[in-house]
Amino acid sequence: MEKLHGICTITITPFTEDGQVDLPSLRNLTNFYLDNGVDGLTILGIMGESNKLTEAERMQVIKETVTTVQGRVPIIVGCTAPGTDVAIHYAKTAEQLGASAIMVAPPLNLRNEQAIIHHYQMIGDAISIPIVVQDEPVTTNVTMSAKLLAQLERDVSNVEYIKLEEAPSPIKITQILNESDSLTILGGLGGVYFYEELERGANGTMTGFAYPDVLKEIYQTYTSGEKEKAQRLFFSLFTSHPFRSPTRHGRCDHSKRNFQDAEYY
Amino acid sequence: MEKLHGICTITITPFTEDGQVDLPSLRNLTNFYLDNGVDGLTILGIMGESNKLTEAERMQVIKETVTTVQGRVPIIVGCTAPGTDVAIHYAKTAEQLGASAIMVAPPLNLRNEQAIIHHYQMIGDAISIPIVVQDEPVTTNVTMSAKLLAQLERDVSNVEYIKLEEAPSPIKITQILNESDSLTILGGLGGVYFYEELERGANGTMTGFAYPDVLKEIYQTYTSGEKEKAQRLFFSLFTSHPFRSPTRHGRCDHSKRNFQDAEYY
Repeated sequence: MEKLHGICTITITPFTEDGQVDLPSLRNLTNFYLDNGVDGLTILGIMGESNKLTEAERMQVIKETVTTVQGRVPIIVGCTAPGTDVAIHYAKTAEQLGASAIMVAPPLNLRNEQAIIHHYQMIGDAISIPIVVQDEPVTTNVTMSAKLLAQLERDVSNVEYIKLEEAPSPIKITQILNESDSLTILGGLGGVYFYEELERGANGTMTGFAYPDVLKEIYQTYTSGEKEKAQRLFFSLFTSHPFRSPTRHGRCDHSKRNFQDAEYY
Repeated sequence: MEKLHGICTITITPFTEDGQVDLPSLRNLTNFYLDNGVDGLTILGIMGESNKLTEAERMQVIKETVTTVQGRVPIIVGCTAPGTDVAIHYAKTAEQLGASAIMVAPPLNLRNEQAIIHHYQMIGDAISIPIVVQDEPVTTNVTMSAKLLAQLERDVSNVEYIKLEEAPSPIKITQILNESDSLTILGGLGGVYFYEELERGANGTMTGFAYPDVLKEIYQTYTSGEKEKAQRLFFSLFTSHPFRSPTRHGRCDHSKRNFQDAEYY
């Protein structure tokens, strides 16, 4: 598989009025993402409300997405679970149903680094597709250092990606890439740092932003070498982004202005 | 079914060295509880690590327990889940497999009272066995008032029980019974307030205490009318109970001594 890159949208799971998974809407939504040029689809993440689905519903969502996408872009399946064995069960099922990779955050409140490494090792041993480590301290209550993320890559052969969600993400990208030459980093946080993330070395973003075409245009402009144009486009669209608030971003205390200052950016 | 009462032990789930559910040990453990005179068994609770089990493993535990108990005591099955539909799925499965009742805590962080009521209504509508509302603010981050618990009983026909875990539980028992004449309350918190809970009107305790025979003796002595003897027995065993600490009990700031003072007790 080509390395994950560009815009890997994190998808919602559509439901009918009575709470069932809405498969026709899931097909429409998947086609909408593809029509807007996404480079990958991440299903059953936090945004996909995966923890509110039964195992049968999880399988429905994976199967329907795989059938609709027909190999046009990689599909990453969220397999986070409160325990290792459930995560392994999710991971094996995802691989069997055609996932290109899985995404796993640590279990809620699991803060012992050896236990985190063991968790990923056990999952990694059970599958042969790559693992995206979801670094999402706000939801998991688990803050992983750049050193730990690099350690995960060294200790678990299929850990290849970090999906970064600890704000401010640009600084952490530099920290991680100082620890590892080979990890591939995807940004997050609704795209509010997307330009800065690219500048710091991210390979793209994996986020639930509702207008993937906007992110795609910034990405294409940036990777074609027109950095200044990409920067103008980004700041024209994201300066007043409503998600750029301290509460939304956990312990973020940097405004975008800081990143434009020489000290940070 | 006779009202739940006495010692309804919350069970652990035994695992083999390689992390599988250990069914022979589960049988041994179930027989140990029965030999020690428990009046009910609550399986797949927080102590049973239910959130680390696959759906298939949940079913294994329920089936094995039902087969071993053979109707000698009621079996209450924990069906807490992060979403309503998963909880309904667990609840229907538990009922089909022979559960006498289910126990459900609110989903993590669900603090909107109307949403909590709706959650229990949807579950209640899906089954015909009683619901034990697990009031466990430390794990769920959801604190339910006595008024809300009474409201749940009025709005959901099969909500009959509260398993109380908000420390200090004796005070809350009085608050709840001031709001409802018909709710049946079971204490918790490792039995550290068990005597006080009985004095306040609890019908028994539902807790994961490892020596159910001790609690049973206190309960039998108390209900036979020998309150002073039960009190002496309780305080001789529980005064220095290691779990009676502020951290274990969340926002508990009352020592046992307070309860012996006239003001509280």
